[in-house]
Amino acid sequence: MSKEITSRATDYAQWYNDLVLKGGLADYSAVRGCMVIKPYGFAVWENMQAALDKMFKDTGHVNAYFPLFIPKSFFSREAAHVEGFAKECAVVTHYRLKNDPEGGVMVDPEAKLEEELIIRPTSETIIWNSYRDWIQSHRDLPLLINQWANVVRWEMRTRLFLRTAEFLWQEGHTAHATREEAVEEAERMLEIYARFAEEFMAVPVIRGIKTASERFAGAVETYCIEALMQDGKALQAGTSHFLGQNFAKAFDVKFSNKDNQLEYVWATSWGVTTRLVGALVMTHSDDDGLILPPKLAPWQVVIVPIYKGDEQRELINAKVNGLVKELQAFGIRVKYDNSDNARPGWKFAEYEMKGVPVRIAIGARDLEQNLAEVVRRDTREKRVVSFDGIAQYVDSLLKEIQESMFNNAKAYRDEHITPADNWDEFERLLDEKGGFISAHWDGTAETEATIKEKTKATIRCIPLNNKKEKGKCILTGNPSEQRVLFGRAY
Amino acid sequence: MSKEITSRATDYAQWYNDLVLKGGLADYSAVRGCMVIKPYGFAVWENMQAALDKMFKDTGHVNAYFPLFIPKSFFSREAAHVEGFAKECAVVTHYRLKNDPEGGVMVDPEAKLEEELIIRPTSETIIWNSYRDWIQSHRDLPLLINQWANVVRWEMRTRLFLRTAEFLWQEGHTAHATREEAVEEAERMLEIYARFAEEFMAVPVIRGIKTASERFAGAVETYCIEALMQDGKALQAGTSHFLGQNFAKAFDVKFSNKDNQLEYVWATSWGVTTRLVGALVMTHSDDDGLILPPKLAPWQVVIVPIYKGDEQRELINAKVNGLVKELQAFGIRVKYDNSDNARPGWKFAEYEMKGVPVRIAIGARDLEQNLAEVVRRDTREKRVVSFDGIAQYVDSLLKEIQESMFNNAKAYRDEHITPADNWDEFERLLDEKGGFISAHWDGTAETEATIKEKTKATIRCIPLNNKKEKGKCILTGNPSEQRVLFGRAY
Repeated sequence: MSKEITSRATDYAQWYNDLVLKGGLADYSAVRGCMVIKPYGFAVWENMQAALDKMFKDTGHVNAYFPLFIPKSFFSREAAHVEGFAKECAVVTHYRLKNDPEGGVMVDPEAKLEEELIIRPTSETIIWNSYRDWIQSHRDLPLLINQWANVVRWEMRTRLFLRTAEFLWQEGHTAHATREEAVEEAERMLEIYARFAEEFMAVPVIRGIKTASERFAGAVETYCIEALMQDGKALQAGTSHFLGQNFAKAFDVKFSNKDNQLEYVWATSWGVTTRLVGALVMTHSDDDGLILPPKLAPWQVVIVPIYKGDEQRELINAKVNGLVKELQAFGIRVKYDNSDNARPGWKFAEYEMKGVPVRIAIGARDLEQNLAEVVRRDTREKRVVSFDGIAQYVDSLLKEIQESMFNNAKAYRDEHITPADNWDEFERLLDEKGGFISAHWDGTAETEATIKEKTKATIRCIPLNNKKEKGKCILTGNPSEQRVLFGRAY
Repeated sequence: MSKEITSRATDYAQWYNDLVLKGGLADYSAVRGCMVIKPYGFAVWENMQAALDKMFKDTGHVNAYFPLFIPKSFFSREAAHVEGFAKECAVVTHYRLKNDPEGGVMVDPEAKLEEELIIRPTSETIIWNSYRDWIQSHRDLPLLINQWANVVRWEMRTRLFLRTAEFLWQEGHTAHATREEAVEEAERMLEIYARFAEEFMAVPVIRGIKTASERFAGAVETYCIEALMQDGKALQAGTSHFLGQNFAKAFDVKFSNKDNQLEYVWATSWGVTTRLVGALVMTHSDDDGLILPPKLAPWQVVIVPIYKGDEQRELINAKVNGLVKELQAFGIRVKYDNSDNARPGWKFAEYEMKGVPVRIAIGARDLEQNLAEVVRRDTREKRVVSFDGIAQYVDSLLKEIQESMFNNAKAYRDEHITPADNWDEFERLLDEKGGFISAHWDGTAETEATIKEKTKATIRCIPLNNKKEKGKCILTGNPSEQRVLFGRAY
């Protein structure tokens, strides 16, 4: 298999696909729009899951599991929700196959469901239908539940990780006694997503709220984190919704408050998906392959021996086995690749492709001198270091790489937030520079739609704690209260 | 909500349902045959997952994720597989809804799939379709992949955890260069299941192989572990299949061996499901509620304070906060329930219902005397112990409970393996005693089918390393080589 990667300059989209496929993160499948997450890509997702799951549990959330299927009628219950969601879904209509007289199997026409079932595109409806039975009193609140699950949205144009028909995600669904508590929860979870993106993925994000037209179907307010990819396109990396009492009303979920009066319950929902793996790839990688941040890399360190003959090999093995244990004692995920399937040069390229943060190479002469070569994947910087204290050195280096990857991504992102004060500049910036354009907007959905139609740019968000600043709308010249962030997005 | 539980003697099936529902493990859902796994039940499953996942990874397996959907035509590829599986499945035929002129939404007849998609009932076909691209050379083998996923089998009669239309499971799918390696893998994974059942679930199991008619559709050999429930019915707790080259041939998966010749790949698959939670409940619990083994209990210890007034409460809180930290330092999962929603007696009953292995109660007088009351859930044994060294004591007690639960279950199981040497005895034992009946069988599928028809008993397994013993078939009197284990099963 060729490991040639298209360069970013040549074709950014192809570069991304090459990285995902040749880096062993994912593969296409026999089912339109559905991908296979390969072991290496799934290991990244598992590391993401572990970090997020801990953050959720540390803030009092518990996991549960609700059905994959949603009765069709449930979608019609919440009017705004059905508008936004119910259209492009996988629909189960039958529950049996039978032998086809012409060979193979066919759907048994006798086994038609009375009511069709929808594969969940999101689970608010089926979950709030259960919450009706689970919530009676203020003592049952808050209910802080998360689920890790697969969901399906029948996307027409799909891209590995970024947009697939089936994807994996977590969806939190919480129920509260007051509006204030629910808003606080939605904001808390947004902050957890932002911290996760920045501290684990090394991806800087802008915390903001969506405009009404970009809001989740059924939400009163949608909070989001927005990241910037290397091609200057924005990517929505996570959303947290304050749902008001919309779903409680649709599913008749009331609780008796401390005064023994019945009230509708307040809700939030929040989710991040396997698209985060795509965001990780697009934020950090280069033309030689993936660059993974140490906190999420399946292997943080790879050790490659360089030897001639069995004797040298055995000597190096003995030394490295000790090193592996030392590194593991620091909690470092390390792979020792002493397979003789491939030459060291091939292995170097392979682990560069796979974005392993640190490579240690050890030859016979190094061994004599008690030295090893340590190479960072992100900067390519090489250092020859003594074996004494090497584990400690690598441990610090991993922390430095994590930090440096974040700082670099942040510098790039910050350089790509550009103010625009007239339409020509706005269009020119979008076409020539990309990134987030900070511009005045008159606050109407019409203007937002016209700008999207003209430029494909959308309002990515109104940043939290946005500075108020009087100005004129970039399109209409009408008065504006604040700048918002526009961008073309994935 | 009433916490009254039907006794086992009154109605075993109802007792089980009461425990699952009132113990907070699961709930019914709005979708026929699908259940909601509630947070407490899901926490048990998460503990199972963590233990199994570690055992899989320690034996070289990695996780991945394959699509939920399987093209209908894939099922017809492996002849035996389609016979066994393809019938009762959820079938996706459409990919869009639209507004119904009469209100609500309807399936858009324009959005019909060219080829229907089946929700995976198991993933051999879609996975081996990918393996064709992933395996070229003997250097690509073995491929040791597992996936944690949801699957759907359209069961007509469902029971919480034991048999549901959608369930959660893991499915391992491995590829090997030789028959011997694949058989070894199938046996290794069976042993891992057996160890998990015995060491974590405290459920003794019989390791065996299935007869041809009970074999997995498409397998050459099905290995299984069989457990015994308190009502004398057997429960298949896990299976591991040696698949020969059946799926490699069906999906044309070949590798070039060391002599550069193309050969078909050898396969295994193996899985356990959320039904294990049901097995756990049925093996250990009693008429007062669940009894969970410490290794899988979401909370291993619950601490209940007994106080009058705020002053006593504060004193106990201060003491218990220290104890909680001490217990956590032992790695013990502990809950301190000092809520004032309920009286101590209500809490005692609640945590008995939930099967928390150890309860510690602390009152104001205990505090003065530096004492606490420690109660085991399994035996109800009470002991008043000193606060000094209490964490160490509880840690040992948890280990003792784990062991004692296994020993009790094993004693019960062993008492319920009974030889039968004539038909009357066989039928009488099945009706009056239950459990496994060890009896001679002539080795034919016809006899097996007749016995099943007459008694509802099936051959649960032929135990591994079964003693050869000449005898006469319990039904036909024809010559037999060995005894096999019969039983009525879930």
